[in-house]
Amino acid sequence: MSTSKALPQPDREEIRVEAVLQALGEPVRLQIVRALADVPEGIACGEIELPVTASTRAHHLRTLREAGVLSTHTEGTRRISKLRREDLEELYPGLLSGVLAARR
Amino acid sequence: MSTSKALPQPDREEIRVEAVLQALGEPVRLQIVRALADVPEGIACGEIELPVTASTRAHHLRTLREAGVLSTHTEGTRRISKLRREDLEELYPGLLSGVLAARR
Repeated sequence: MSTSKALPQPDREEIRVEAVLQALGEPVRLQIVRALADVPEGIACGEIELPVTASTRAHHLRTLREAGVLSTHTEGTRRISKLRREDLEELYPGLLSGVLAARR
Repeated sequence: MSTSKALPQPDREEIRVEAVLQALGEPVRLQIVRALADVPEGIACGEIELPVTASTRAHHLRTLREAGVLSTHTEGTRRISKLRREDLEELYPGLLSGVLAARR
């Protein structure tokens, strides 16, 4: 039986718009967010194709998680991340869909 | 007769979402954007109350203008800034209203 554990993240009411915007305003992190937007059930972080090293990838995922953009839980040795769409839509209606509408 | 001159800014198709997000993700710049959102006809930059020096204010206004978030024109010795709502709404529908909905 594999254990599942959620990594620390801000509660909805602790999320700050400046942190969300800063987290989203970086090309690789935006690429991660776009990848996650297509898969509501979440993605194992390693499966997202990114032009960066594993440690840079981990850093970007952490920045997104700590800003409140995504949540991550472990399943055995895998880390699954999901966008916090509901939280973001409740706090900033339209923001995420507007960002995802951007030409790539 | 005072002359009016627009300061340089990206055309709509040159605006990049990363630059917009980075520009918006800073507390003082967000305060400027909120002030401008209330006044469609634009504000003389000096009239926005901000807890920063004039040169920092000018720097933030320039960052917002170069990102495509606002436009600025001179009227004699005054600089009037306006949000580029229409351009942003066309490019990223919902983004700006989502940001403006954030609790302050």
